[in-house]
Amino acid sequence: MICHDMELKIQRSMEIVHRAIEKGNGHTILSTGITGDDARLARAAVEAGASMLEPNHPAVVLARGHRGITAMHDAENFRHEISIDQMAEVTRGVRAVVGDDIYITVGIPGSFTERQPVILTDEDMEKMSLAGANGIHTHKSSIRDLEDIVKLAHKYGLCIDAYIGLPTDRHIFGLPAQTPEEVERVAKQMESVGTDMIGMMTGMSYEGVEAGQIPTVLKERLCAMVGAVKVPTLGEGGINLTNYRAFKETGVNILVIGTSIDKMVEQAAKDAIGDFLNQY
Amino acid sequence: MICHDMELKIQRSMEIVHRAIEKGNGHTILSTGITGDDARLARAAVEAGASMLEPNHPAVVLARGHRGITAMHDAENFRHEISIDQMAEVTRGVRAVVGDDIYITVGIPGSFTERQPVILTDEDMEKMSLAGANGIHTHKSSIRDLEDIVKLAHKYGLCIDAYIGLPTDRHIFGLPAQTPEEVERVAKQMESVGTDMIGMMTGMSYEGVEAGQIPTVLKERLCAMVGAVKVPTLGEGGINLTNYRAFKETGVNILVIGTSIDKMVEQAAKDAIGDFLNQY
Repeated sequence: MICHDMELKIQRSMEIVHRAIEKGNGHTILSTGITGDDARLARAAVEAGASMLEPNHPAVVLARGHRGITAMHDAENFRHEISIDQMAEVTRGVRAVVGDDIYITVGIPGSFTERQPVILTDEDMEKMSLAGANGIHTHKSSIRDLEDIVKLAHKYGLCIDAYIGLPTDRHIFGLPAQTPEEVERVAKQMESVGTDMIGMMTGMSYEGVEAGQIPTVLKERLCAMVGAVKVPTLGEGGINLTNYRAFKETGVNILVIGTSIDKMVEQAAKDAIGDFLNQY
Repeated sequence: MICHDMELKIQRSMEIVHRAIEKGNGHTILSTGITGDDARLARAAVEAGASMLEPNHPAVVLARGHRGITAMHDAENFRHEISIDQMAEVTRGVRAVVGDDIYITVGIPGSFTERQPVILTDEDMEKMSLAGANGIHTHKSSIRDLEDIVKLAHKYGLCIDAYIGLPTDRHIFGLPAQTPEEVERVAKQMESVGTDMIGMMTGMSYEGVEAGQIPTVLKERLCAMVGAVKVPTLGEGGINLTNYRAFKETGVNILVIGTSIDKMVEQAAKDAIGDFLNQY
């Protein structure tokens, strides 16, 4: 009884994304990390112009000091211990302070490539949708698992953003594709199963390059993905103020930015405390 | 069977406070707001030298976007809806990332002057103590209620910091005292019922003064409190980088700083987002 309602919901969500991309002349950012899950800073991000936010379960591991974990690398190993209810609470809070015109995609236990059998259910998707999510941020690594999650999410009006990675990535965050030809093929496959936004993992496994540049091989991969699909495209990982422009030049629409903003915010807190303690 | 254990726990906690004050030649800060409840920024605060942290329930209203509330003034009206379990979760997380040598005092529903009959129980205090709190941050407004909460907290090894306010304050955050003589009398009363740290509300109700200065009447009140008691003293409200030095000159030991740091952190997030969105 809600099939068409949910089609309309997905349509409205994607309109937000397209408006954000148009407003930035083909580009926008998806703000994650502390600006994705803390309602105070999510609101600050939106006030500064962000139209897309991404709370996710590994960042909530860090926000809640779960198991005393302080590094994202370690958070990835225990992210499945954050509950759907916790992610729904985070989503509800962020939604409540940013209003309805902001796109919120949420990483939840089971939406990434997990090491345990973390199974997402209809009830989970309903919960996230009712909490105010527009979409689910996924990092599955096979087309079959991705197709499953797309179908489940769409039933409850949730869009899916999914990613392509390198077969050699340290953490598995996407469907593997090595050459630009493979990227093109995989991206088209992802689009054909209904993925609403298709991204590429752009951090971690690439060699360092000159400041402000991105590696040629990465540029080629991004361009292959951008050219292969009609849906909005994303880049995630290692994007900062120095290389942001180089990323935009590949034509990728949405730049996912987390660590880079978190670092600036943490530095601001440190500077503030230092200023108070060192005043005479 | 835990009477002496809890006396020792209180003793160890107060040693942390005294060490922090000595390290700062008579002064330290109690970092609250986002640096009190978000594990990422609590850790940043500690790395920058903070030795005392204060998660509290109205700040968690803002952190969680509870009811869509975005202003501290509104948060005060719904802070009792945050649960002890939520505050215990926050405390456990912050403790896990900052280690045992940091003093954590926690504002919890029932520890402030509430408009509803929010009753703190033995179970609540046990929970907060086990979650890793050193103390409970209170804002009761009668010596009788304060004495009750001191007794309850001490049973579970939790210290109490409590405050003196003006009878005319917009939000009631302390025991009322108008003249320096009243302040002296009330502070001694608070000390006599076992309050471990005694503070003064220093914001909101005072007239504006020259930048870097604090009003004479406030200076006299602070000096009266500092001179009246042997326990560590605190100032809370309206303290910023400009007037911090003037506060220190009154001899008050611990400056509670929240809004001022929150603003700097929020500005950092806004600047970061703005930088990304405005790059060409």
